[in-house]
Amino acid sequence: MRATVIVMPKESVLDPQGVAVREAIKHQGLQGVKEVRIGKFMEIELESGADEKDLHAVCRDLLSNPVIEDYRLQVHP
Amino acid sequence: MRATVIVMPKESVLDPQGVAVREAIKHQGLQGVKEVRIGKFMEIELESGADEKDLHAVCRDLLSNPVIEDYRLQVHP
Repeated sequence: MRATVIVMPKESVLDPQGVAVREAIKHQGLQGVKEVRIGKFMEIELESGADEKDLHAVCRDLLSNPVIEDYRLQVHP
Repeated sequence: MRATVIVMPKESVLDPQGVAVREAIKHQGLQGVKEVRIGKFMEIELESGADEKDLHAVCRDLLSNPVIEDYRLQVHP
């Protein structure tokens, strides 16, 4: 089975990397860009039968910083 | 409109960050993990009417390093 995890900065948290990329995109000529937010994308390959609860624990304790980041977990059996 | 871009290391490229996270997950008790690959996830908010071709150019020239990374672009009108 396969799980994908997306970790993004919370809406209320400044994302300076995203701001820098937004300005770079504008500089490249794409004027219509309003906001860019940058996070992490993780693909996890697992033996079948892993518990989704355990995966949530891994996301919370290891893959994200819950103070400033949210995560989205998707499990593909 | 909104675009999301996923940038991942190519299959043939070593991902030491992914290996480190795999070992950390095993250490946390989830033994069934076989492989972890880590990339970037970008959400781009745009004024409507942006050309998908221009977005591909931004992905290729700015958001990814085509020597070692692949990107996936999804446009949500």
